Amino acid sequence: MNILAGRRINERGHLEIGGADATELAQTFGTPLYVFDEMQIRSMCRIYKKTIAEEYDGNGLVLYASKAFSCMAMYKIAAQEGIGVDVVSAGELYTAVQAGFPVERAYMHGNNKLEKELIFALESGIGNIVIDAYSEADKLNELCKERGMVQNVLIRINPGVEAHTHHAVQTATPDSKFGFATQDGSAAKIAKYVMAKENLRLKGFHCHIGSQIFEKSSFALAVDKCVDFMAQLQAETGFETAELNLGGGYGIWYTDEDAKVSVEGYAEYLKAIIAELKAKTAQYGLKRPKLLVEPGRSIVGEAGTTLYTVGAIKDIPGIKKYVAVDGGMFEAPRYALYGSKYTAILANRANDKNEEIVTIAGKCCESGDIVAANVPLPKVNTGDILAVLSTGAYHYSMASNYNRNFIPAAVLVKEGNARVIIKAQTFADLVRNDVIPEDLQ
Amino acid sequence: MNILAGRRINERGHLEIGGADATELAQTFGTPLYVFDEMQIRSMCRIYKKTIAEEYDGNGLVLYASKAFSCMAMYKIAAQEGIGVDVVSAGELYTAVQAGFPVERAYMHGNNKLEKELIFALESGIGNIVIDAYSEADKLNELCKERGMVQNVLIRINPGVEAHTHHAVQTATPDSKFGFATQDGSAAKIAKYVMAKENLRLKGFHCHIGSQIFEKSSFALAVDKCVDFMAQLQAETGFETAELNLGGGYGIWYTDEDAKVSVEGYAEYLKAIIAELKAKTAQYGLKRPKLLVEPGRSIVGEAGTTLYTVGAIKDIPGIKKYVAVDGGMFEAPRYALYGSKYTAILANRANDKNEEIVTIAGKCCESGDIVAANVPLPKVNTGDILAVLSTGAYHYSMASNYNRNFIPAAVLVKEGNARVIIKAQTFADLVRNDVIPEDLQ
Repeated sequence: MNILAGRRINERGHLEIGGADATELAQTFGTPLYVFDEMQIRSMCRIYKKTIAEEYDGNGLVLYASKAFSCMAMYKIAAQEGIGVDVVSAGELYTAVQAGFPVERAYMHGNNKLEKELIFALESGIGNIVIDAYSEADKLNELCKERGMVQNVLIRINPGVEAHTHHAVQTATPDSKFGFATQDGSAAKIAKYVMAKENLRLKGFHCHIGSQIFEKSSFALAVDKCVDFMAQLQAETGFETAELNLGGGYGIWYTDEDAKVSVEGYAEYLKAIIAELKAKTAQYGLKRPKLLVEPGRSIVGEAGTTLYTVGAIKDIPGIKKYVAVDGGMFEAPRYALYGSKYTAILANRANDKNEEIVTIAGKCCESGDIVAANVPLPKVNTGDILAVLSTGAYHYSMASNYNRNFIPAAVLVKEGNARVIIKAQTFADLVRNDVIPEDLQ
Repeated sequence: MNILAGRRINERGHLEIGGADATELAQTFGTPLYVFDEMQIRSMCRIYKKTIAEEYDGNGLVLYASKAFSCMAMYKIAAQEGIGVDVVSAGELYTAVQAGFPVERAYMHGNNKLEKELIFALESGIGNIVIDAYSEADKLNELCKERGMVQNVLIRINPGVEAHTHHAVQTATPDSKFGFATQDGSAAKIAKYVMAKENLRLKGFHCHIGSQIFEKSSFALAVDKCVDFMAQLQAETGFETAELNLGGGYGIWYTDEDAKVSVEGYAEYLKAIIAELKAKTAQYGLKRPKLLVEPGRSIVGEAGTTLYTVGAIKDIPGIKKYVAVDGGMFEAPRYALYGSKYTAILANRANDKNEEIVTIAGKCCESGDIVAANVPLPKVNTGDILAVLSTGAYHYSMASNYNRNFIPAAVLVKEGNARVIIKAQTFADLVRNDVIPEDLQ
């Protein structure tokens, strides 16, 4: 089991992340604490960028899918690594702008972008907007016309490929709030509709086939279906697809039920995509489109670790042992939402042998508030520092103030140097927007 | 179907909440918007208080379970109505304190209260702390000793009654992170442990058998099991239970699959509890304990309505019609978490006949971001104002900034007068705690 990538156990028997002793991080910054390994994040950005450079003549752009973990520091890192980002709201775009991100490298997604979000995107100078509704095409065209500008756009299509962890299936008619089906003519129809808009410049198409996918053939299948569509559309209308955005969805390691892919191993996903894209466009005699990919989880997921302090322990004989930590579903919502599985390590006794199976419970007043179920651990004591691994994606980004708990701080660690990138909330944050109307006072 | 309690359809055919036209609320405050009917909230507080006064000689206290909807205005209302509250974190208690709530009427729950939370509770003068772990009893006693004070406490017990919507079952050994089982001696053991603590004054016991329960016999069964335990403990130790806290869990109406209980109808839950408590204590010859109940959802749930503006509409022939709104799982997380069902009304055409079944999708970049599935509605158009009912509990309180969307405003409406009780978040809120470390700049 090689779960320590980017982590190691130091001579004190403590977990070390990015060169920093996890128990010292807990001491310095308090718990719960989101810890991000900076070099792991940068390495992932680099491997994707390098693969496109080497295998596709650099004719593409890696877009960090920032919904996985959105904060100013992440956009700064993406900017420094020379990649793009995708944003899914005005809030994410605003955060990128505040971080000084060059938003001509930003793509905006969303099945229901609000008018004010479109306006903000246009006025920020966003590179591309991925259209996902007729009403959006109308509204966006109108807003561009008012501003005397032409906006680059993609259209979200649905190639009828539905991928799960280990395989992809081709579905007859996709049931999704996203995209337009290629199979039934819906995608071609909206493409022609958008082409006819004077203030929109259609650059190509976007699809996203799912999340946490390990099988490379799933992506190849999506490429096939997209290129089939591109060829058919070109034959019919002469439209040459300049950009093809294949989304993200590369799986990461949470537990040993998942594959453990090395940083270099993630190059293989893009290689498979590129090989298929080259072959398939050649087959049709199409010009190769600029390739966009949108890794999010795979860039930040394994780079993140959450540190907790163990509190109450409740052993229900013959049933279960609950180990409660100072976090919970308010900062780690994926178990409550999806029943997600995780691996944990005792950060202060990282060499101890596992000897029991416990359920890591949160502190929220809800029975379903579990951080991770059925986790093998050494005998745990109150006061131990527990590390839950692979929490970089969709933890902070989905965190809430449920039970009026505080959203924890996040630190970025590199060569033992930890810097706060998100400050922990305080009491003031909880009531900041609360108002007691005058007549109630 | 009488779903309009506290609401009506006005002469313009618009939904009216607390005397205010919902379309005007949407216009004035923007959408999404949480709307709370003040009189519905107050009526629920009053019916519970009145029932204890009339049926139990006022020997009790209604505690609003504030995790359902925690904000300063709610604690103010609870204070004005002369009821107590339960809080489940320092953050909730802080909010109550900021609202001027008399915290001697506050009870603190939690399976893993942090030391700093216990300190804050003691220093705030909280009325009672409900102990749920040995380590907590030790820590709390130590903190009280340091402060030369004695703290009133309850112990969370688990009477082995597990209730669901329509019936209760008695389980052999409860699997829960909460409480100590009465059946296997665990509860008696920790009771003796706490009695021996010099700085803790054990007042009695707390249990909570579940949520969204309609069957009154479930609560009667819990009373039985608790009084059995009280009698046995008294026989063994002489300890007289002064307070019995039976939690909450009274069901509310979300769709016609649920019973629609009138405000007055909720008195029946307490009457059933009180009748059983009188009978059972009489049977054992026990002194009647002070009765505490903790309604949360039933006080605020039906009082809340969320208003949305309809955006993109996607009709997938033969499959499903998606109606996207400007909210989503970030402000309405219960479908994503529990698959919860809801009823919706077109607020601007509230008299129109339902003619199709649609799925109300949110704007988050996630397929599972659904607000409500399979909802009957009139033909919906982009720009319509859609009201989703019974959203007062566990919507705002679980809201997140997922996708960096803004948590919406909440208004309290009474006699047509709407006042903001929670301001909508702004861009500034999203990046308030973001930091770009110096070496990244």
